[in-house]
Amino acid sequence: MTSLLDLPTPSLLLDLDVLKRNLARMAEAVARHPGVVLRPHMKTAKNAQVADLAAQGKGPITVSTLAEARYFADHGFRDQIYAVGIVPAKLDAVAALNAAGNAVKVITDDLDAARAIAAHPGPLEVLIEVDVGEGRAGVLHDGEELLAIAAALGPRLVGVLSHSGHSYAGRSIAAMAEIAELERSRVVAAAEKLRAAGHALRIVSAGASPTAMYAGRLHGVTEMRAGVYMMGDLLQAQLGVHPLDDVAVTVLASVIGRYPQRQAVLLDAGALALSKDRSTEAAPKDWKFGRVLDLDGRPTLGEAMVVRVHQEHGEVRGEGLPLDRLPVGARVRVAPNHVCLTAAAHAQYHVLENGRLVAIWERANHW
Amino acid sequence: MTSLLDLPTPSLLLDLDVLKRNLARMAEAVARHPGVVLRPHMKTAKNAQVADLAAQGKGPITVSTLAEARYFADHGFRDQIYAVGIVPAKLDAVAALNAAGNAVKVITDDLDAARAIAAHPGPLEVLIEVDVGEGRAGVLHDGEELLAIAAALGPRLVGVLSHSGHSYAGRSIAAMAEIAELERSRVVAAAEKLRAAGHALRIVSAGASPTAMYAGRLHGVTEMRAGVYMMGDLLQAQLGVHPLDDVAVTVLASVIGRYPQRQAVLLDAGALALSKDRSTEAAPKDWKFGRVLDLDGRPTLGEAMVVRVHQEHGEVRGEGLPLDRLPVGARVRVAPNHVCLTAAAHAQYHVLENGRLVAIWERANHW
Repeated sequence: MTSLLDLPTPSLLLDLDVLKRNLARMAEAVARHPGVVLRPHMKTAKNAQVADLAAQGKGPITVSTLAEARYFADHGFRDQIYAVGIVPAKLDAVAALNAAGNAVKVITDDLDAARAIAAHPGPLEVLIEVDVGEGRAGVLHDGEELLAIAAALGPRLVGVLSHSGHSYAGRSIAAMAEIAELERSRVVAAAEKLRAAGHALRIVSAGASPTAMYAGRLHGVTEMRAGVYMMGDLLQAQLGVHPLDDVAVTVLASVIGRYPQRQAVLLDAGALALSKDRSTEAAPKDWKFGRVLDLDGRPTLGEAMVVRVHQEHGEVRGEGLPLDRLPVGARVRVAPNHVCLTAAAHAQYHVLENGRLVAIWERANHW
Repeated sequence: MTSLLDLPTPSLLLDLDVLKRNLARMAEAVARHPGVVLRPHMKTAKNAQVADLAAQGKGPITVSTLAEARYFADHGFRDQIYAVGIVPAKLDAVAALNAAGNAVKVITDDLDAARAIAAHPGPLEVLIEVDVGEGRAGVLHDGEELLAIAAALGPRLVGVLSHSGHSYAGRSIAAMAEIAELERSRVVAAAEKLRAAGHALRIVSAGASPTAMYAGRLHGVTEMRAGVYMMGDLLQAQLGVHPLDDVAVTVLASVIGRYPQRQAVLLDAGALALSKDRSTEAAPKDWKFGRVLDLDGRPTLGEAMVVRVHQEHGEVRGEGLPLDRLPVGARVRVAPNHVCLTAAAHAQYHVLENGRLVAIWERANHW
């Protein structure tokens, strides 16, 4: 394989050693809870080789698009939850996957959609989405809507599902654990309410990376979903999901301009290659549009960060930026604020193992 | 062709009628300046059919990546400026295009890069980038660096180039015209300084959509570059580049959840399908993550806008949001804050003419 000096820039790098550490850390965290399965969310990685490591033996996975559902089904991952509210127009595609031997489960929080699902020839299985406090999607765990939707779904109902994306705003391990416990109690209460009404549920699905990592107990939950932990990013590091140095995905970039008068350099990685995500804006350490590391992925460039982006330009500044080491053509790596968004801008990963390029892995982008 | 009801969601739509109006408006604006050529920037559209309309007869274009340079060369657009500072590692690729009969010009503002360009076997032609006030890239128009770089480039130097991206912060036509005149005076002064030093320059290239539209005079400038005007977006509309209703690119999305208790709906277009660009944040009207229109692209949904995004979820709220018209499965269109970023998330355009789907056009994404 070529070296990092031969790759075009910008390019997306995936450090396999870091990925494996992140996977092991989460596997261990979930293993603390007997009977709870990890159902990794592939919306971040969108890649089958990563899924083979994260869901070993073609285990259960979560997906966020029909494109992912099809791609992972093609790669042998039959047990999927498509964890974005389903619309009737997408049922044919899901049922076709299921008719071909897959078990792609859909979710809903809407009575009309539940009726459409019930009326569809299938095969289809459904989870009801429960709002456990995020206020994004889902029905209340103790409301009448939950029962009405379940009644409409009938035997196609197989479980309940919740997401605690608001845990991303947590600022301590205790705060994550508290959010995890609130989520657990509410999604389990929803399941109990449905079981009391005569519905047989086999799946009680919860999770997000911080809560999967720090939940104190998960009694009643059958599985945890998490995705961003695999790659990690500058927000997840500050949430305690992984150490700051364990960001597995970085963007390889070249210096395209050097400006001593303002102590800045420009990179050929801008708004498209990094995304405009500003997830660390409210975090203890604001990394602007990304932390700039040296070519080996080490933090030897002072507090270098991408402070401003244009479509194909990223402006780097920061305390201690060593301009003498950054002539035009020099290469650096940018660790992302929010890896899901950054990775989605790229068609493939250049995979590193022990610092050497060993493979190119594709991504199932788009819809 | 299928109808808008049959397309998968999210999908990117391009309204050809609006595109043509936007192209005509800019062509007319630039035609006010005899001897000034429009060199459309294809970084927004990244599509050859659009280039055929914007640069008729395979006219001169601007590109922002090597991927675009190759793609447009393959489609017959030989005269290109690759308007992002070049690094030595990319010179082989550019020279290969030129050896095949193209004229892809590169830009630099760096003495070391200029020496590398001069030492390369070529064929290569170069413009020096001049900073006219944006403070992003470029040398000063009246500094010694300009002359040193020119001397290093020797006969490969064919012009100077400036960009006034700071015109995006302008808030009146008078302000745009003032920025345009400052840019003109500085880039022309740079050209004159180089000519006085014995360099023959045939290109004095300036521009950005707002300044191309509103420049009062362009004496000494040979060409204007602009790109986002073709498609338009919610920021450009507020800069007066086009009417608010002339946004040619929208994202088709489905309602995936309806929440009367908080007067909101969720769409299946979120951070990936719309981007996280917040360009209108500081504009007179902040459209958050995009303006929500009905399926015909008309503003009949009150002040509906996407107020919050997650990876595949967009939450819509706004004064007068008609929830009764937005059940799960209903389809809407989202006009983007910043079309360059939104379009880049999609592999292709679904092209509409007189409201009917007539074609699918690809995009030359990535690098």
